[in-house]
Amino acid sequence: MPVDANAEIEITGFAWVPDFARGFVRDLRPRWACEEAGIGYRERLINFETAKGEAYRREQPFGQVPAYRDNEVQMFESGAMVLRIAERSETLMPRDAAGRARILTWVTAALNSVEPFVFDLVAIDTFNKEAEWAKLRRPEVIESLRGRLGSLANWLGGKDYLEGDFSAADIIMATVLREVSDEALMAEFPTLTAYRERCVSRPAFQRAMDAQLSSLAAEPAMA
Amino acid sequence: MPVDANAEIEITGFAWVPDFARGFVRDLRPRWACEEAGIGYRERLINFETAKGEAYRREQPFGQVPAYRDNEVQMFESGAMVLRIAERSETLMPRDAAGRARILTWVTAALNSVEPFVFDLVAIDTFNKEAEWAKLRRPEVIESLRGRLGSLANWLGGKDYLEGDFSAADIIMATVLREVSDEALMAEFPTLTAYRERCVSRPAFQRAMDAQLSSLAAEPAMA
Repeated sequence: MPVDANAEIEITGFAWVPDFARGFVRDLRPRWACEEAGIGYRERLINFETAKGEAYRREQPFGQVPAYRDNEVQMFESGAMVLRIAERSETLMPRDAAGRARILTWVTAALNSVEPFVFDLVAIDTFNKEAEWAKLRRPEVIESLRGRLGSLANWLGGKDYLEGDFSAADIIMATVLREVSDEALMAEFPTLTAYRERCVSRPAFQRAMDAQLSSLAAEPAMA
Repeated sequence: MPVDANAEIEITGFAWVPDFARGFVRDLRPRWACEEAGIGYRERLINFETAKGEAYRREQPFGQVPAYRDNEVQMFESGAMVLRIAERSETLMPRDAAGRARILTWVTAALNSVEPFVFDLVAIDTFNKEAEWAKLRRPEVIESLRGRLGSLANWLGGKDYLEGDFSAADIIMATVLREVSDEALMAEFPTLTAYRERCVSRPAFQRAMDAQLSSLAAEPAMA
């Protein structure tokens, strides 16, 4: 539990990824949500060739993971599935309309107002470190991301979580903050490093992480 | 109607923006949703100084527009508010769980799996056209965006809209596609140009656009 071959929820991840991606593949998000909610899920592991194929693209049009299904719905996009799992739980989202709207707002903010700025830095630091354009561009990317992180830190202030208790919004925001590839930049915002640590030190996060890591094969399977 | 000073829903936009942003400010999205749903909204127009101030940041932590409130909830993030408006309407989202999950999925996909790639091109074409890094980087950005647009075109195939009838998901995806700054790239995907045209030729889009444009002052107000 929660990984359970007979569970209603199915989460699709990769059977193998390169070292730099281990612990960061986005099936971590719905796994974490299930762990927090105490809801079981079964794993389906696919290789890159399957992910790019036409059959899988009818489930996940961009050929990525995770994909998700339960007895009622079929989805892709980790942010959307965390909201779906949250709807089935008492623990990841308030029940009232005002509270639910805040969680939806912050999930969207993490995905569209913070993560794209983090992506820009990852594109440089992980995938183009030696490129000439990356060296020229990096200071501006840092400056933009610094602005977003500052706004976020300002919002958090002395709060433990984005909105009241720990929620689906913190699952998405904490995983976004884990992707920031410049720890010196993060260290400028002790509010954010403490918040991220508060989130990822939750036992449910650790179980989700262990589940992802132990699902990944040491070597890519032959096609 | 729908712009109505006595309406329950309040949408906050800018009182003035530079020419290049007119018709693209994101209050267009909730305006469009209200127009499709036939739900009235009142406008609150603010200047850049107000947007950056501490008071407004308690409503919108990143100092941007739109912000949103109705009698029950207070939100930011245009994607989240379009989903909120869709919940109050029979026209923008199916009523069943499976259909609702699909719309949530596609709104999230537009915001996190397509728009960041569009942002990357806008960062070059709108804000850094003459920068050395931008010239070096642009071919790779085009190639990444081409991949995303190809996946989206493949999903759409012969369908008129992303999921069945026109929905909240099409509001977000069509506004994302309007941001693509290379029409030659878009023209590689007749499926997408036809889809975008199908969406923006809707009378509700045109009314929303007119409402945004007529709300914008010709000159910035003095601080």
